[in-house]
Amino acid sequence: MADIFEKLVKNHGPLGQHRERAHGYFAFPKLEGEIGSRMKFRGKEMIVWSLNNYLGLANHPEVRKIDAEASVQYGLALPMGARMMSGNSNYHEQLEKELAEFEGKEDAILLNFGYQGIMSAIDAICGRHDVIVYDAESHACIIDGLRLHPGHRYVYKHNDVEDLDKQLQRAAALVEKQKTGGILVITEGVFGMAGDQGKLKEIADLKNKYEFRLLVDDAHGFGTLGKTGAGAGEEQGCQDAIDLYFSTFAKSMASIGAFMAGPKIIIDYIRYNIRSQIFAKSLPMPIVLGNLKRLDMLRTMPELKEKLWSNALKLQRGLKERGFDIGKTDSPVTPVYMKGGVEEATAMVMDLRENYHIFCSIVVYPVIPKGHIIYRLIPTSVHTDADIEETLKAFTETKAKLDAGAYKVEAIPDMAEAN
Amino acid sequence: MADIFEKLVKNHGPLGQHRERAHGYFAFPKLEGEIGSRMKFRGKEMIVWSLNNYLGLANHPEVRKIDAEASVQYGLALPMGARMMSGNSNYHEQLEKELAEFEGKEDAILLNFGYQGIMSAIDAICGRHDVIVYDAESHACIIDGLRLHPGHRYVYKHNDVEDLDKQLQRAAALVEKQKTGGILVITEGVFGMAGDQGKLKEIADLKNKYEFRLLVDDAHGFGTLGKTGAGAGEEQGCQDAIDLYFSTFAKSMASIGAFMAGPKIIIDYIRYNIRSQIFAKSLPMPIVLGNLKRLDMLRTMPELKEKLWSNALKLQRGLKERGFDIGKTDSPVTPVYMKGGVEEATAMVMDLRENYHIFCSIVVYPVIPKGHIIYRLIPTSVHTDADIEETLKAFTETKAKLDAGAYKVEAIPDMAEAN
Repeated sequence: MADIFEKLVKNHGPLGQHRERAHGYFAFPKLEGEIGSRMKFRGKEMIVWSLNNYLGLANHPEVRKIDAEASVQYGLALPMGARMMSGNSNYHEQLEKELAEFEGKEDAILLNFGYQGIMSAIDAICGRHDVIVYDAESHACIIDGLRLHPGHRYVYKHNDVEDLDKQLQRAAALVEKQKTGGILVITEGVFGMAGDQGKLKEIADLKNKYEFRLLVDDAHGFGTLGKTGAGAGEEQGCQDAIDLYFSTFAKSMASIGAFMAGPKIIIDYIRYNIRSQIFAKSLPMPIVLGNLKRLDMLRTMPELKEKLWSNALKLQRGLKERGFDIGKTDSPVTPVYMKGGVEEATAMVMDLRENYHIFCSIVVYPVIPKGHIIYRLIPTSVHTDADIEETLKAFTETKAKLDAGAYKVEAIPDMAEAN
Repeated sequence: MADIFEKLVKNHGPLGQHRERAHGYFAFPKLEGEIGSRMKFRGKEMIVWSLNNYLGLANHPEVRKIDAEASVQYGLALPMGARMMSGNSNYHEQLEKELAEFEGKEDAILLNFGYQGIMSAIDAICGRHDVIVYDAESHACIIDGLRLHPGHRYVYKHNDVEDLDKQLQRAAALVEKQKTGGILVITEGVFGMAGDQGKLKEIADLKNKYEFRLLVDDAHGFGTLGKTGAGAGEEQGCQDAIDLYFSTFAKSMASIGAFMAGPKIIIDYIRYNIRSQIFAKSLPMPIVLGNLKRLDMLRTMPELKEKLWSNALKLQRGLKERGFDIGKTDSPVTPVYMKGGVEEATAMVMDLRENYHIFCSIVVYPVIPKGHIIYRLIPTSVHTDADIEETLKAFTETKAKLDAGAYKVEAIPDMAEAN
């Protein structure tokens, strides 16, 4: 008989296997000081490109003011219990109302954390006879929602509407055969790794051919896309075709929590049947008041989104002009694709941090195929021209070193913290 | 072909079907004012028995002070991103260290929300060949964790160690046959509905007979049980036999978030492999600092736990002396079992609220069998003798009315809010 812990001790998993030399540097790094385009990492000031603080709200004086005032007034314990039992308030309901209005939907439900919120909403909506058809690059929280689904699911190739058509055909045939159940298509407004928008308009057009409902996770589109910032649906002119609109507050809103908006009767159904909300604590009052304020700023201060886009386009144009491959992003998310081994990537990141003072996220094998490196830069409205210029210079110089094989010779030192 | 929304419109679910007349009164009520034993409900002051504010920390001046100060100093946005990417800090690590020490474990991992935390931890630990054996009355978050498990699971009758033995025999035979995989037993320190402690000592003794690891969700035991407040394991003298100790901060700590403590190598494995934390935002700094302070108070102010127990025993003795059936609770959780129909229960709750100003939770069909009513009272350290006396009087009088059939004649008015 084996011990259930035995396998965990033997194999630490794709990221965990590197933990001894990565911890504190490549994984679980500490960014210190106030949130902004420059923060401290291991005592050195860095230009930071890793935070989804798109609109610069995280450290905006008005946000700091409401966060402080609401916490002084209410403390962080109130309300206690789940919304349904004892954790409801007028402010929770007001935020739901304002989010619904902003998204042009009848109603919205506040979710105490985005990950469990969408996961559990998918679980609440879908019965065993329903079929879920989803994009292959859907976020982990959607995949975990699918894993709770006892019925069938079909995956379509990332953003491939032709393949979606095929999978919808399969799903429709299954539902037809079952004589019961419906179809839910799940995709994202903006895919967080590559920055490409989900083809919502083309997906919505398939409603002429198949009967399905569309759920969109717009975590990166909310606040950054569309005339008013209402997201990818507004941007693509197909907001009405999105039956259920979801976004976390963890990005443009620089907070925690999330919401789902849609038809009143369906949101009400979710409200009374979503396990992760019925059986878990409500969002603290200062978080709710903070999000009301953030939403107000997001709506009434278009200059924040304009500045974000001005910075995003400066960065993206600058990279392209210097010959970098930034793929097919049509959002502020800016990936930079390079070729190289894991050890080269490691040495390059260290050079970027230690000598150029650039802090950004990197993805390598085993998350993506061997020999590939993806940097991911998140421009925000608080980045400056100097931040962008220095970063372009740093990338140009380190990329030249990478191409010249300069990072091949360096051994990887142990960057884990002494403790 | 059917619309996936159609079934939701037709059938609103066990609780949702009553939403039109229940909303705002029986479901999603609003308790207003500062957290305490007396709060306002629909403008009237009520004695509140619905909040898991066991130690009275929610509104303690020192808690209010740290919540306010930390929010002023850091705002509620910091840090941004997941712990692994950009959301780590010295304070997050300090809280993990202190929680591990408090529970007598090598290490602990902070979880951004209890529900998704334990669910996702179960998912991270268990492989497809592993077998989970769990208590039939496990909380929804554990059940959702099990639902993510692709392998076998066996349920044992609630707190029935003989049945657990049988299920362990089945599980052991399966693992033996598979020649791989291990066994995880999951139970709770205190079951939140009936208030009975999980028989951890007897369960742990089964380790002499079978090889398994034990995961305990001690949401209601943390802070309320054991000499130091370390929970049900300490209370029963078997803390060392608990391999993974889990608690939310949503009860004794009057906050949000949670933690899991255990052997360093396993907690490290979870740290690098738990999806709901790797792919979701870290806990805000003021929540972390607030929990450091709450933990400190929980450890250094034993008078809070003493007062809680003094109140709990006063309430429980008072109910028993008056002939009430409070079942087999051996924790502060105080259920009161009665017999009656759903309509009688509804009328009785309204009488308790409107005329006696007692606000407590009630459970009826379809959550429990028809003809049964369970009230659930949560005493805390901030309840007063007057609160307890008035409540005992109110229960005595309304129970007499119930037994005399007085609530049978009343029709159920529509208590939903006008809006």
